[in-house]
Amino acid sequence: MNDTADSIRIIAFDVFGTVVDWHGSVAREIETMGLDVDADAFALAWRAGYKPAMQEVMENGEWIILDHLHRRILDRVLDDFGLQALGEAERQQLNLVWHRLEPWPDAVEGLTRLKQRYIISTLSNGNIGLLTEMAKRAGLPWDCILCAETFRKYKPHPDTYLGVARCFALEPRQAMLAAAHHGDLEQARQCGLQTAYIERPYEYGRNNPKPVAPWDANTLHTRSIVDLAEQLGC
Amino acid sequence: MNDTADSIRIIAFDVFGTVVDWHGSVAREIETMGLDVDADAFALAWRAGYKPAMQEVMENGEWIILDHLHRRILDRVLDDFGLQALGEAERQQLNLVWHRLEPWPDAVEGLTRLKQRYIISTLSNGNIGLLTEMAKRAGLPWDCILCAETFRKYKPHPDTYLGVARCFALEPRQAMLAAAHHGDLEQARQCGLQTAYIERPYEYGRNNPKPVAPWDANTLHTRSIVDLAEQLGC
Repeated sequence: MNDTADSIRIIAFDVFGTVVDWHGSVAREIETMGLDVDADAFALAWRAGYKPAMQEVMENGEWIILDHLHRRILDRVLDDFGLQALGEAERQQLNLVWHRLEPWPDAVEGLTRLKQRYIISTLSNGNIGLLTEMAKRAGLPWDCILCAETFRKYKPHPDTYLGVARCFALEPRQAMLAAAHHGDLEQARQCGLQTAYIERPYEYGRNNPKPVAPWDANTLHTRSIVDLAEQLGC
Repeated sequence: MNDTADSIRIIAFDVFGTVVDWHGSVAREIETMGLDVDADAFALAWRAGYKPAMQEVMENGEWIILDHLHRRILDRVLDDFGLQALGEAERQQLNLVWHRLEPWPDAVEGLTRLKQRYIISTLSNGNIGLLTEMAKRAGLPWDCILCAETFRKYKPHPDTYLGVARCFALEPRQAMLAAAHHGDLEQARQCGLQTAYIERPYEYGRNNPKPVAPWDANTLHTRSIVDLAEQLGC
């Protein structure tokens, strides 16, 4: 374990689901707005449009930030849920809920501890403005904001994972990706990064627990960001 | 004054000379290494290669980060100062002095106060790794690191100034550039940003004081980052 702790210089974190609770935050916003829909289902539907929208950007070649993709998906989901009447100002405000996602309870403490020893960064498909405003509101103490917008590629493009190491003139194995998604970690590992899985069984809500079993290929398996800090001796 | 304070959302800072003392930090490093040269002159010569190197990048079109430009210039300056014998490891270490520049005495307090009310960001020609490591070492509490590497353009290209506003979906006049260089501020103003001049009379060392007279075109004229915070009511 000390070998791992000594070999890495930067830990880059996936954000949606890993550091912040997108499902709970979006569902609460829908409820607070008093919209007459199943908030749980609405949050899931909005998020379900995320991967296809990014894939389309990567295939078309024209760069579009996630705020704009979120808005396109939102308009479609509002139609699907019979909320066509929602006005422009409310749509703009609702779309910015992704800037106001709440951190998981262990996130601020875990990141603060890790920051004492490592460079801690985002590596998210969110855009710079979204991630900066989220961090400022939630108190996430990032050393820097790295994301799809920095590299003009969405994960899982290798330029994103390798970009983290390149920004700091490091070998890939001196960088670690921390994420609640085995697929994201698998792609990072193929680029030579070390990987830490973080269990987030309720990423999709209390009604939709997801499996959080370890994959042997990961460098570390953790239950939270505080647990990651402890396993790395921070 | 309250109009200004209320109209801006983000303050982006030039870094070299404005937030950190590049001349003093580089000269001290040369002295500490015991190199047999005029440390003052060496620091000035290294910095003098900076603008031509960036202009060459902008004309050639191939993106090169500032760390690599600093190294090219360093090799030339070592030749000019008769230090051809300096080894590769020492050159690499010396080149990273730009990651270890010391902040001006008012920088951390001023930025910490401004951060309570505004998004505070770099807008530097330094690269992401350089600025992140500098901030971590010096305790500069940036909300995000924006720089030439983010936009793949060196200042004074308009994409850099406008990029600050675009990242946060703001109008240019909702963003302010703070810098110790009237030329940098003039370019930002032409893009529609508000501007704050910060007096740094000893940017080029105690032996080379520079004029710090106000230009009427700037939104604010300040004596330090703490003074900027005070003028904005922070």
